[in-house]
Amino acid sequence: MGTIQQPWEQIVSKKRAIRDKLLAPYLVDIEHRVPRMDHVDCRSRLENEPEVQEITDLDLTGLLKRLETGQFTAHQVILSYIKRAVVAHQLTNCLTEVLFDEALQQAKKLDAEFTSTGKLKGPLHGIPITLKDQFNVKGVDSTLGYVGRSFQPASEDAVLVQILKDMGAIVIAKTNLCQSIMWGETENPLWGLTTNPRNPAFTPGGSTGGEGPLLALHGSILGFGTDIGGSIRIPQSFAGLYGLKPSSSRFPYEGVPVSTQGQEHVPSSIGPMTRDLSSLTYITKQITTSQPWSLDPRCTPLPWNEPIYKSTQSNPSLVIGLILTDGIVTPHPPITRALHELSTALTAAGHELVSWDTTDHAGCIEIMDTYYTVDGGEDIRRDMDVAGEPYLPHVQALVNRGTPISVYEYWQLNRRKHAAQKKYLDKWRTTLAPSGRTVDVLLAPAMPHTGIPHRTFRWVGYTKIWNFLDYTALTFPVDRVRREMDGVSGMEEGYVPRNELDGWNWKLYDGDAVDGYPVNLQIIGKKLEEEKVLGAASVIERIWMEYVGGKNGGNGE
Amino acid sequence: MGTIQQPWEQIVSKKRAIRDKLLAPYLVDIEHRVPRMDHVDCRSRLENEPEVQEITDLDLTGLLKRLETGQFTAHQVILSYIKRAVVAHQLTNCLTEVLFDEALQQAKKLDAEFTSTGKLKGPLHGIPITLKDQFNVKGVDSTLGYVGRSFQPASEDAVLVQILKDMGAIVIAKTNLCQSIMWGETENPLWGLTTNPRNPAFTPGGSTGGEGPLLALHGSILGFGTDIGGSIRIPQSFAGLYGLKPSSSRFPYEGVPVSTQGQEHVPSSIGPMTRDLSSLTYITKQITTSQPWSLDPRCTPLPWNEPIYKSTQSNPSLVIGLILTDGIVTPHPPITRALHELSTALTAAGHELVSWDTTDHAGCIEIMDTYYTVDGGEDIRRDMDVAGEPYLPHVQALVNRGTPISVYEYWQLNRRKHAAQKKYLDKWRTTLAPSGRTVDVLLAPAMPHTGIPHRTFRWVGYTKIWNFLDYTALTFPVDRVRREMDGVSGMEEGYVPRNELDGWNWKLYDGDAVDGYPVNLQIIGKKLEEEKVLGAASVIERIWMEYVGGKNGGNGE
Repeated sequence: MGTIQQPWEQIVSKKRAIRDKLLAPYLVDIEHRVPRMDHVDCRSRLENEPEVQEITDLDLTGLLKRLETGQFTAHQVILSYIKRAVVAHQLTNCLTEVLFDEALQQAKKLDAEFTSTGKLKGPLHGIPITLKDQFNVKGVDSTLGYVGRSFQPASEDAVLVQILKDMGAIVIAKTNLCQSIMWGETENPLWGLTTNPRNPAFTPGGSTGGEGPLLALHGSILGFGTDIGGSIRIPQSFAGLYGLKPSSSRFPYEGVPVSTQGQEHVPSSIGPMTRDLSSLTYITKQITTSQPWSLDPRCTPLPWNEPIYKSTQSNPSLVIGLILTDGIVTPHPPITRALHELSTALTAAGHELVSWDTTDHAGCIEIMDTYYTVDGGEDIRRDMDVAGEPYLPHVQALVNRGTPISVYEYWQLNRRKHAAQKKYLDKWRTTLAPSGRTVDVLLAPAMPHTGIPHRTFRWVGYTKIWNFLDYTALTFPVDRVRREMDGVSGMEEGYVPRNELDGWNWKLYDGDAVDGYPVNLQIIGKKLEEEKVLGAASVIERIWMEYVGGKNGGNGE
Repeated sequence: MGTIQQPWEQIVSKKRAIRDKLLAPYLVDIEHRVPRMDHVDCRSRLENEPEVQEITDLDLTGLLKRLETGQFTAHQVILSYIKRAVVAHQLTNCLTEVLFDEALQQAKKLDAEFTSTGKLKGPLHGIPITLKDQFNVKGVDSTLGYVGRSFQPASEDAVLVQILKDMGAIVIAKTNLCQSIMWGETENPLWGLTTNPRNPAFTPGGSTGGEGPLLALHGSILGFGTDIGGSIRIPQSFAGLYGLKPSSSRFPYEGVPVSTQGQEHVPSSIGPMTRDLSSLTYITKQITTSQPWSLDPRCTPLPWNEPIYKSTQSNPSLVIGLILTDGIVTPHPPITRALHELSTALTAAGHELVSWDTTDHAGCIEIMDTYYTVDGGEDIRRDMDVAGEPYLPHVQALVNRGTPISVYEYWQLNRRKHAAQKKYLDKWRTTLAPSGRTVDVLLAPAMPHTGIPHRTFRWVGYTKIWNFLDYTALTFPVDRVRREMDGVSGMEEGYVPRNELDGWNWKLYDGDAVDGYPVNLQIIGKKLEEEKVLGAASVIERIWMEYVGGKNGGNGE
């Protein structure tokens, strides 16, 4: 990695100018598109373009059906999403690399093929996709938010991008992420700060924080991110949407550059981000069925297992381990309330809830935190040195946190990790429900809080524990913050914080500010149990909908 | 790891005295059991004990049948194997920890259970097993050949041992290995030198070099070893027997201490070692069906896939990639001849052979060799420092070979590994047979030579490349050295060595010395393709047997 002589600000100006020129033809007036909690997608409506509106409000299956019947062309679909993505960008600063022209050309090509063959190219024919600015797309930069990676276009597509394109998908843009990737917000000196779709003063989460707002504002229907500590689940949780972090060897990582690349101690996962559960299941099934292991040596040769998915989906009595707290940072009242309500609904529907012991989480997280600095910050520092842009405070703190350890010491840390992973697996095998059965999946908070203001982010323990174990974890929305039920401030109740972090988190709760913000939870399965987690999610979501419907029917809400 | 104050020789004396006392009741006169090439198991025959002889000559299925029908008790079986194992040990010094008394007690317990229930305990009821002195068995040392690990009995069984015991298997002994494990011979100051079953002047190979002789001399029917560069396949190749190195996540490694423990760059594999192919398949099926991933977090949740095994086994036209040389060290004449003969037979039987390009092997091996010294030898040095026994020359050379590198540099080496693994996978995907099909499995030498004298071992490139790629590799016997066909010396033909190593290997060929030694080959499949490799092995072995039968029938041999 060399260093670049020109001032970093100059590179930033050039990169942004290129992007802005490509966005220009689609810009709209956003003055009256003010913050709103409910139906946030209304912020990006294009009232005067009913076709755009219709297309971008369809779900994946609905859209595919319209493409298959010829009701819409791929070009119409792509153009519609481009238009709405630009509004989303104007509202949140979520886009980085803009591929509109190429996308429209590909759409025309697809349409021509469809006209001549009468057949869709594949299971994602004409579907627009967006990618965290980390996935290699031939001819396009993968900046990772580092100024020094600008103007180095990828020489070929990442394996996942190849697979998606072969299925007929069309990349329309890449999206913003956090400097160093290792953080739960979305900001870097190259592309700036991305905001929450509901409120510019709030963070969208991160590090895949361009996707959450874009999906929430219907500027995308299918996004892909990477997750090494929560980077898919955090932004989808803040957006009130769906994200799957599979085990690391399920989706192909080949061709996706990453921070601390080459480390194998806690591998990052690639996963899909969607607006609904059925799309999440659909895309996971498609990718795992496409045999990615024939293109990526790190993938496990494990095709989609429909029987496991189906049997979970139709299981009348799942055993669900319930995590109310990790014992370190207690979740805010709306999250705990939602967990209790959902547990009640699940129990009433015949499923078995069992309390899940989290006393070992602190130990796992201590090991994981030690890994963050084993190279003394050299990897990130090298990337930062190329162009010399300023460090964000948390990245500065990370690279200065510890001195490098030796390879021998690193192996000893791996041994501690293996022991902790073994202990966790033994816990899973030996934790029995009253019926004597073992747990199918866990139900847990996704974060200890809902939406929060920019730069107040700190605790990732609820997501990163599953990266440490390489388990499958899915986030999904259940409810919204209800000030009238959840209270205005956690502190008024005389809550005694467990520790400094917990105190910080508890003070962060402001029922007035977050009233109406989405509440997401997490479903967790063991390593490579994506089918089971998706199956359980569909059971849980169905029961929750019935419960909410029943409640509303009962009280006339 | 502390240091021990008493002289290391004293610990060795104590350990060996304990072993020898346990062996004493079974010792026989071995004076007339001279070296022999053919039917080497005749060296360990117990002529005066026909029942012992009958039991220990049965194959696994045959033995299980006799146990099931009650023709033999577990006690008879275990006692018979103990007797013959002791003769094998007297001839080759293959045993380390001796568990005869415990084994006989367990056998009695099994027999009592069988008497009362009429049912076998499991699919390995009463089957004696032996383990490289690396697998934890509760109450027994796992020395790894290090003096300093003596008198530290394991507190519980390794996961694999647990699984085997649950299936009814009985551990009768642990077997010798090489100091540091990272070598293809079998010697350490604690247990001494193990010899080839055919000839005390020859090495049995290593590092699982206690199992090969013990199996060849019918002192065991089922052994388990570890393989990080060939340590299962090398000794089984020298013994003319069968060994499977699965991909590293297929068999459970939990509870098996190893050199450089905690490294994840080229994971060691556990695998079975047997006297015939059907036993190898049987045990692999049993272990993978037992869901080891519920006990070992590093195992892939991949149950035995019978359809893949069966469809490979009945495939009338496999595509087989043929490796005649790795381009670095050319195999000795008998190996090349066997490969040619087998290729002819396979082609005649309808299978398609395609030449496999190995020009990238040297690059892979260079990366792998760099890994050996990334910790500057610290891991091995620490183990050696505990008791202070002398280094074997190759271990000394290994720990002195390089200075440690930083964790950051180590990650860069991992990136080079990933790139090489991707390139290899792409080669597999794009190498097409004339029929246009891709390759099912590879057929290759197991070693560049057959049996060799002690301490002449050097080149492991034919086995360790598959560890580097984490592919599945199986070794199996095809023929024996035939001086009349293979020549007496490679040098007389005016062979021009490719390099210093190749020259060394070629000089090592001595047709007079090795006439009659087994010739083994290797079958290789991609990552986690154990079913395919075992299925292909059964096809290849069947065709080879028919070919040999036909040839012998034809020329009256």
